[in-house]
Amino acid sequence: MRKISVVGIGAGDPDHLTLQAAKTIGRTDVFFLLDKGETKAGLINVRERIIRAYSKPRKRIIEGRDPDRDRNPADYTGTVADWRHRRSLVLEELITENLKDGEIGAILVWGDPALYDSTIAILEEILDRGAVEFEFEVIPGISSVSALAAKHRIGLNRVGQPFQITTGRRLAEGWPDGVDDVVVMLDAQQAFTKHPEAEIYWGAYVSTEDELLASGPVAEVADEIVKTRTEARERHGWIMDTYLLRRP
Amino acid sequence: MRKISVVGIGAGDPDHLTLQAAKTIGRTDVFFLLDKGETKAGLINVRERIIRAYSKPRKRIIEGRDPDRDRNPADYTGTVADWRHRRSLVLEELITENLKDGEIGAILVWGDPALYDSTIAILEEILDRGAVEFEFEVIPGISSVSALAAKHRIGLNRVGQPFQITTGRRLAEGWPDGVDDVVVMLDAQQAFTKHPEAEIYWGAYVSTEDELLASGPVAEVADEIVKTRTEARERHGWIMDTYLLRRP
Ligand SMILES: C[S@@+](CC[C@H](N)C(=O)[O-])C[C@H]1O[C@@H](n2cnc3c(N)ncnc32)[C@H](O)[C@@H]1O
Ligand SMILES: C[S@@+](CC[C@H](N)C(=O)[O-])C[C@H]1O[C@@H](n2cnc3c(N)ncnc32)[C@H](O)[C@@H]1O
Repeated sequence: MRKISVVGIGAGDPDHLTLQAAKTIGRTDVFFLLDKGETKAGLINVRERIIRAYSKPRKRIIEGRDPDRDRNPADYTGTVADWRHRRSLVLEELITENLKDGEIGAILVWGDPALYDSTIAILEEILDRGAVEFEFEVIPGISSVSALAAKHRIGLNRVGQPFQITTGRRLAEGWPDGVDDVVVMLDAQQAFTKHPEAEIYWGAYVSTEDELLASGPVAEVADEIVKTRTEARERHGWIMDTYLLRRP
Repeated sequence: MRKISVVGIGAGDPDHLTLQAAKTIGRTDVFFLLDKGETKAGLINVRERIIRAYSKPRKRIIEGRDPDRDRNPADYTGTVADWRHRRSLVLEELITENLKDGEIGAILVWGDPALYDSTIAILEEILDRGAVEFEFEVIPGISSVSALAAKHRIGLNRVGQPFQITTGRRLAEGWPDGVDDVVVMLDAQQAFTKHPEAEIYWGAYVSTEDELLASGPVAEVADEIVKTRTEARERHGWIMDTYLLRRP
């Protein structure tokens, strides 16, 4: 039987790798990389550094081309489903052609595979088609959310209170019901600016060398964050930022 | 200056330790342990195994007595605040008496320090009193939530959707507004039984040798989970379980 490990590698700091992830990488025969294009070169470097540091000498690295994707689609869910489908076809072919029976393959996932990542769903889709068989396991990783909270030295929840994790797209529709603490990912529109009454704990490139952090009342720090974010995005060509909004 | 590291150690599997956590433990002069009493011996064992494996030979281990706490208080937030306060007094004394200038102390925290844990707030309270000075940093850890999702091989969110992390106490008041996916921690009352329409992904002692997992429609699996949970709780004398509820 073929076996595939979906390995969370943390969101930037190579030392956020767990011992379990390092051991799994050390056993892996074939690494499958779906290229995210040159813009996110920083992320790809971390992945390659990790493979270099912990893999065995005779592993193989197989690169596929990540299908293109509309970043601002009218139908978000439909577009993501379609992109996942095309991605699953690419990956299925890579697995079929490169992973032999009895071998271990691995896909290294940014952060924690359980958080806004499609790898698990893509593997399920491949298995559902039934053309190739494999077992798979998931190795948890430090998410960008945990990394952000650690750098700001805050808890995500307040005593006995719930919190929500959501996307910038959702937050732009209004403050979510039922919670005063909201973690926001995938925000291309700086939706926090609409909530001057909240405190923000913001971070970009968290736990990498380029890390940027800011916090304070949104009313006071929003302009500065927007400026910093815009400049950083131009300098790097890409940005990944996450924040917690805390309403009094 | 004294320095204290709040180190997330994962929620059971010693291999969920990150390289950063292992390195931090290796630099630590003084470990502060607040004894949780005999009932949670399993958890204390993991912590001690980790210290044994990664600490330097000449560290010191300082144990304090965790103040008692009413587990079913009428005023939950007030009771927790009071318990935190008493805990901060115990820890302040331990730090003052045992951590010398220039030394590094560490507090090992179960899971991720950002999730339903009071250590950061307690350190802030000690600093606010101003009687002792130190710097502190937080090292993120794999939370029980990440470990649960990995074992069930699921994502916590659905495509582009938010999810909430909350407590059993809150869920018992009704399904939270605005989300169809809810992660529940600290549930002593099996609040999931009131939501037969949801799917549940449940786990106890996740990522330990005693791990128990179950999943399926609540209507079909709730009785079995309640039975398993009750038996396990009696056998071990304590239980830690977490689950995701997913509404269609
Ligand atoms: C597709 S999601 C993947 C999340 C990832 N699985 C995790 O656990 O962090 C990408 C989003 O994660 C967040 N993110 C990932 N890495 C980050 C970092 N180093 N600093 C800040 N945010 C980050 C950003 O919100 C970004 O838009
Ligand atoms: C005080 S909270 C601490 C959470 C911890 N900081 C974390 O990140 O997982 C304790 C709760 O965490 C959950 N928990 C901790 N360890 C667990 C494990 N190994 N399996 C299942 N649930 C666990 C349970 O819901 C438990 O009631």
